[in-house]
Amino acid sequence: MNIVEIIAKKRNNKQLTKPEIESVIKEYTENKIPDYQMSALLMAILLNGASDKETTYLTDAMMNSGKVLDFKDITVVDKHSTGGVGDKTSFILAPIAHACGVKVPMIAGRGLGHTGGTVDKIESIKGFNTSLNLKQFKEGVMNHGMVLIGQTKDIAPADKKIYALRDVTGTVESIPLITASIMSKKLAEGASGIVMDIKFGSGAFMKTKADAQKLAKSIQSTALRSNKNIITVMSDMNQPLGLTIGNSLEVIECIEVLKGKGPKDITDLSIHLAAGMIVLAGLAKNISEATKMAKKSIKNGEALKSFRSLLKYQGASDKYVDNYKNFPTAKETCVINANNSGYIKTINGLKLGLLCTDLGGGRKQKTDKLDHGVGFTLHKKIGDKVTKNSPLITIHFNKNQKSIVEKIKKEILVNVYSYSKTKPTEAKLIYKTDIKWSK
Amino acid sequence: MNIVEIIAKKRNNKQLTKPEIESVIKEYTENKIPDYQMSALLMAILLNGASDKETTYLTDAMMNSGKVLDFKDITVVDKHSTGGVGDKTSFILAPIAHACGVKVPMIAGRGLGHTGGTVDKIESIKGFNTSLNLKQFKEGVMNHGMVLIGQTKDIAPADKKIYALRDVTGTVESIPLITASIMSKKLAEGASGIVMDIKFGSGAFMKTKADAQKLAKSIQSTALRSNKNIITVMSDMNQPLGLTIGNSLEVIECIEVLKGKGPKDITDLSIHLAAGMIVLAGLAKNISEATKMAKKSIKNGEALKSFRSLLKYQGASDKYVDNYKNFPTAKETCVINANNSGYIKTINGLKLGLLCTDLGGGRKQKTDKLDHGVGFTLHKKIGDKVTKNSPLITIHFNKNQKSIVEKIKKEILVNVYSYSKTKPTEAKLIYKTDIKWSK
Repeated sequence: MNIVEIIAKKRNNKQLTKPEIESVIKEYTENKIPDYQMSALLMAILLNGASDKETTYLTDAMMNSGKVLDFKDITVVDKHSTGGVGDKTSFILAPIAHACGVKVPMIAGRGLGHTGGTVDKIESIKGFNTSLNLKQFKEGVMNHGMVLIGQTKDIAPADKKIYALRDVTGTVESIPLITASIMSKKLAEGASGIVMDIKFGSGAFMKTKADAQKLAKSIQSTALRSNKNIITVMSDMNQPLGLTIGNSLEVIECIEVLKGKGPKDITDLSIHLAAGMIVLAGLAKNISEATKMAKKSIKNGEALKSFRSLLKYQGASDKYVDNYKNFPTAKETCVINANNSGYIKTINGLKLGLLCTDLGGGRKQKTDKLDHGVGFTLHKKIGDKVTKNSPLITIHFNKNQKSIVEKIKKEILVNVYSYSKTKPTEAKLIYKTDIKWSK
Repeated sequence: MNIVEIIAKKRNNKQLTKPEIESVIKEYTENKIPDYQMSALLMAILLNGASDKETTYLTDAMMNSGKVLDFKDITVVDKHSTGGVGDKTSFILAPIAHACGVKVPMIAGRGLGHTGGTVDKIESIKGFNTSLNLKQFKEGVMNHGMVLIGQTKDIAPADKKIYALRDVTGTVESIPLITASIMSKKLAEGASGIVMDIKFGSGAFMKTKADAQKLAKSIQSTALRSNKNIITVMSDMNQPLGLTIGNSLEVIECIEVLKGKGPKDITDLSIHLAAGMIVLAGLAKNISEATKMAKKSIKNGEALKSFRSLLKYQGASDKYVDNYKNFPTAKETCVINANNSGYIKTINGLKLGLLCTDLGGGRKQKTDKLDHGVGFTLHKKIGDKVTKNSPLITIHFNKNQKSIVEKIKKEILVNVYSYSKTKPTEAKLIYKTDIKWSK
């Protein structure tokens, strides 16, 4: 069957077979199928959907487009988040899980647009080497028990090519395509268990709980078909997570959490996700027991010790943990006061993410260089009471940015916060957790 | 709004505005929008549909991508067929309409795949010049009253580019896109009235009457919005039209029809379509009166005289009309006899079209050269009684084609004809005719 017939089949809402999907992915990765045929097929998949079977075939074909790691009998547990502004849990949950005995492989991305990137954030710490190759990565997981590297073209290259095409053809918002994109990479990384943080809300990919639930189900089914244990956590992303946005600011906030002094939301979510990893690693009977272990690792300093060991293992100094002045920080700050009284009703995280990019803290183009020091510190979150002229948010910026800061100030006051007279009902941060064992 | 937002809008089943559609067509024609974004949008249109308004905007934008002819006060009537194997009505209906006083502009295509092309067929007549420019074309319509030229890049270049993309991205079968493709060209040709032959059945683009009816409605609505009078004729294409397939063979069959000696189906349909043109030109009160005029023009030789005048006007000799030996013809023939007794139930016209291409009578690639002489003569049509070993079809081929002919013979006996023991109920050739006046 040629590619036009395969497109027509999906267009006519028929199910594609495993060989059909395999040949499409292989030929597209080898540049034998042009982008214009692939994008037509992606749109047909987006609009007509794909069955669980088709999603698994797609995931496997994309996974097999590159190297697939195998840790053999060693239990390795991975974590992924669908992302959102201020989401920095990796730097917290990985040391916690590691301190509790979990082997943690992390292959993370860089940021583009409003979303920050885990690799960008950790590079606030000078000397931290995220460019280890897959052999070094595997050794690091087995010997040190925790490694963090940047995305490599050796893992699921088909996903890289397809994602770039989806991004410019309006074909991102498809649950089967999102599932295949996430899972092809995660499966290739060789973990036996995966904790998946699926965010919903105004600042997330999935705007509604219903869509997040669909994605959770799709990911569960793909994981189980591939004999992986899976925990899906649905968490609220209607406002930034924690109190900071910006590379250095976020890593510092994570160290504070590991010291037991972090904001409640990011602490709670990180502990919960780490607990999931501990359960999947077979080191606790259930989430509640694992949560106790995770909390203890913060209290007794073991998690922070793990973070120090990560820095050293990957070539950086741990002096950053002791003195935040070692971080690249912005020279100027400016506090924006509330122009309203009442309770904070909404905070537009997407907008804050884009404004952070305007400051140089994120990328508009793939080739943009980052300023690790700039960003925001939030003083109020949803449900907090504010009085007019009390501090709302601090902008961290550089000397030459006064005119940009003026614009950002206006934008924040007009478009980022909304208020209500009565205290809004508190939304649950962690909405739902599902554990699925493959056998 | 950028192209990704426009794709996402259509993907989300929202209606596109006139400026949005205009900018897409303009930028795509100017190569500012890449194929991979256009094909995603085309698939979204195919699956989510387009309103009458959107279809009109699309048609107009595509029409305005090139030159638009204007015959001012002169009434000019065009005809278009959605095509099928053995469809050769143009060479018959145009001379009939011309003989009855209609001014007939014809801009026609070449064949690709199973479909023959009007330009290819007429080029069986040596010296016939289909490469007149638009100025000469317009003069020809006004002064001679009938001209036939090949498609030019000056008319609706957007359609040419979009059609080529649809062909390789599974996005052909969309009623709004088919409507815009046909109508953008027809409207640009400047006729005040159009007769549209919409074929349905196994050998047609539209497989069912229901789809043909939808296309008819879509074309009517687009024509009326553009102040064009429109007649849609829905006609049966469950078997080849007439008894011949192949370039020379088909033109010869048309001359036979103009001499009053042609097969009934192609004669009846050509007269009916010509009658529609006569009505739209205001030269008859209704189809029945116009049909009488059309029939008379054959009987009194005026239609044949018009055909001779067309040949001469475009640089060819009319000796072809008097002696068919002037046509390029294949040197060999081979009669295939029926391997069954009974009534012919189905004839696979698509297959015969492809087999004609295998013989060299059509193109597999755009650059293929044609053999005008090869083709098929059918001895039996649907509903005819056959006895085993009686002649079914004659293959016209060349000396070096014996091995191809053997394969074709087998293919025809196995896959082209099916039989039934009882006489199948006769299908109406002309199923439905609708006349719509723009004011």
